[in-house]
Amino acid sequence: MPLPQPDLPEPAHPNIDSMLSRKFGKEVANYFSGSPLNRVSFLRPDHAFLSAALKHPSATFLLFRNLEPLIKNPDGSALAYATYSEVQPIIGEDPFATSEEDLIKEFNSQKYIPQIIFLGLDERKEGIVYKEHYKGQPYFALDVTPKASVTEAAEKLIKDLEGRGLSFSKGRMNLSLQAQEAAIYAEARHLLDWNARNPYCAQCGYPTMSVNAGFKRTCPPKDLARELKKKNPERPPCATRTGISNLSFPRTDPTVIMAVVSADGQKMLLGRNKRFPPYWYSTLAGFLEPAESVEEAVRREVWEESGVHLGRVVIHSTQPWPYPANLMIGAIGQAIPGGEDVHLDHDAELEDAKWFTLDEIREALRVGTSGLGEGPGPEYKEGGLRLPPKTAIANQLISAVANGFVTGNPSL
Amino acid sequence: MPLPQPDLPEPAHPNIDSMLSRKFGKEVANYFSGSPLNRVSFLRPDHAFLSAALKHPSATFLLFRNLEPLIKNPDGSALAYATYSEVQPIIGEDPFATSEEDLIKEFNSQKYIPQIIFLGLDERKEGIVYKEHYKGQPYFALDVTPKASVTEAAEKLIKDLEGRGLSFSKGRMNLSLQAQEAAIYAEARHLLDWNARNPYCAQCGYPTMSVNAGFKRTCPPKDLARELKKKNPERPPCATRTGISNLSFPRTDPTVIMAVVSADGQKMLLGRNKRFPPYWYSTLAGFLEPAESVEEAVRREVWEESGVHLGRVVIHSTQPWPYPANLMIGAIGQAIPGGEDVHLDHDAELEDAKWFTLDEIREALRVGTSGLGEGPGPEYKEGGLRLPPKTAIANQLISAVANGFVTGNPSL
Repeated sequence: MPLPQPDLPEPAHPNIDSMLSRKFGKEVANYFSGSPLNRVSFLRPDHAFLSAALKHPSATFLLFRNLEPLIKNPDGSALAYATYSEVQPIIGEDPFATSEEDLIKEFNSQKYIPQIIFLGLDERKEGIVYKEHYKGQPYFALDVTPKASVTEAAEKLIKDLEGRGLSFSKGRMNLSLQAQEAAIYAEARHLLDWNARNPYCAQCGYPTMSVNAGFKRTCPPKDLARELKKKNPERPPCATRTGISNLSFPRTDPTVIMAVVSADGQKMLLGRNKRFPPYWYSTLAGFLEPAESVEEAVRREVWEESGVHLGRVVIHSTQPWPYPANLMIGAIGQAIPGGEDVHLDHDAELEDAKWFTLDEIREALRVGTSGLGEGPGPEYKEGGLRLPPKTAIANQLISAVANGFVTGNPSL
Repeated sequence: MPLPQPDLPEPAHPNIDSMLSRKFGKEVANYFSGSPLNRVSFLRPDHAFLSAALKHPSATFLLFRNLEPLIKNPDGSALAYATYSEVQPIIGEDPFATSEEDLIKEFNSQKYIPQIIFLGLDERKEGIVYKEHYKGQPYFALDVTPKASVTEAAEKLIKDLEGRGLSFSKGRMNLSLQAQEAAIYAEARHLLDWNARNPYCAQCGYPTMSVNAGFKRTCPPKDLARELKKKNPERPPCATRTGISNLSFPRTDPTVIMAVVSADGQKMLLGRNKRFPPYWYSTLAGFLEPAESVEEAVRREVWEESGVHLGRVVIHSTQPWPYPANLMIGAIGQAIPGGEDVHLDHDAELEDAKWFTLDEIREALRVGTSGLGEGPGPEYKEGGLRLPPKTAIANQLISAVANGFVTGNPSL
């Protein structure tokens, strides 16, 4: 898989400085984390709860068309939501009226069911009260892509929404949500994408079915669609049915992203690939492999990409990255003495990798940060180093080193 | 998915103290990490390399039958390996003789090909020299389960091996490998299992094919087996072919496991489930969900399982866990003042969760650690707290807190 790259634009109102205000002491919070929702994950199989939440007057629906969210403003700085009565023509009266067990018995792979996800309860708001402990405004995500049996209803809803000045985002570079909305959007996007990518069972090849309010896919033992083809509706045995299989659960791919400092702590290694604008560099990154610790993955990736040999590695903070399903694990690694020579030919992914002094880095953090598609700030001088924006964990890692993480007085 | 539980026996010769000797300064290495192999991941599509490595006299093959490794001793303390000439009747002269591109064109889903994995080069040993930089003894894993066209050859090899006193392990509780072999085994097991679980494409439902020496599965556009059924060998389009899809790459599931300390830093929260022996407790743990940071997942899991509300969370170290495909991310979290009441009914996974004083914990670390299936040490007194062994990251997290991680003078 290609390098995960933190390449979003800087949000107009990112609200990220408050996220980074060390709410939890030592901890750094990154963009796409910080969701205000309580997921109450254990309530997902509970259709009595889901049904009550769905029909509660406070219920709110984040709509997606082809994985793009509905937004309020053409600048993509705020999400728009729909109500139950607006989405009812698409989802029907109550998709949770029947128990999950019974829905599995009635599975028909030819019947289109628009994907719905229960995202959680916003406990700051008035809303449902369930079993005393679980309170707040219910959030759902819904795929309203015009398709199969819902084509007409979805097209009508979209037309109504557009008539009110709302629209669907056009690519992630056009989204610049404030942090808490970004986290809600990330949860919805990751799960809609995972469901869309997994209509079949990787173990047996037969169609799967969404359960647990979008957080699980099951491989039903029977498919009524087979009767139409004059086949026995019973399907062959599948290992995912006889034990717990990770195939039934959403996938999240751990990636490592790392600020690399020299053995003396005075320089930092950054790299660039061809699609970066001139003078733009970032931290190295890559996917963690099977049976690697994060620390080993960091050393392997840095050596494969740059030839530099690392000694110790310390994990700094993490960032969800919903394009499509990554967990970025940010680390700081230190080169071993004599291991600093750059060699780009092992795994020719990078166009360049080189060492920068901490002074160059500090100046770039001051004047040269921006999203990939944007220009640098007014004080930037052509030829100076450019770096990713604050919404990128790369920026947080680089800043941590520039602020003394390695050489005494670390701020983490 | 159920809780990942660190439940291996304590190895007879774990060699783990040397792993934990802070080779890399601040860093803690956990069991299943610390592989001596350089994976040279970028050479996996290079069949000229793989072919030379396979046939090199130094090449060594770790054999598996139904995901159980070949071992030297009945106590499971050392792996056994085979040579190229021994496995040649199973894999054929050279499975890498043809380029990957050509093998994809010849794909026939009815043809059984025993799964082979290139694990890496042991650079400490004499072996192959490839393109100047890549040197060492090549390690492969091979599935020799008697099956389809290789039944006879595999049965013969297994009989020969058993005649020499070797055998296949009988369950993970019977393995107690020293740390570096455990890491090699973990890589092999994780990848063999992933390949075995993914014979079909989750995107389109058609059979997939192993490429990149076992580190990728591709969805070929053509399947010669279809001709036997008088079908066009060309298959319908699949989205995994037109872009890079994570479905093609091995899956690793991030999990969080955490030592929870009280707001005043003087107590630790531990939990137990029904299958634990009496008085045995461990850290809480669970799967990270889509679009969560590690820190958020820790807070969510602790609240869902125990009702305790956490403030700051710091990541401590990580551990690969190949049953089947986990990355355990170890963290230390601190309860907020007033958030320490235990409530077990949100997500009824635990039988009990309670607070222990650091003195109780230190005593248990001294006399009461063991694998789940083993008895505690001789000094242990019935009724005292029992804890997981050093091979478990749970033990490392508990020890870090007991040794002052939170209350001044932290050892990390």
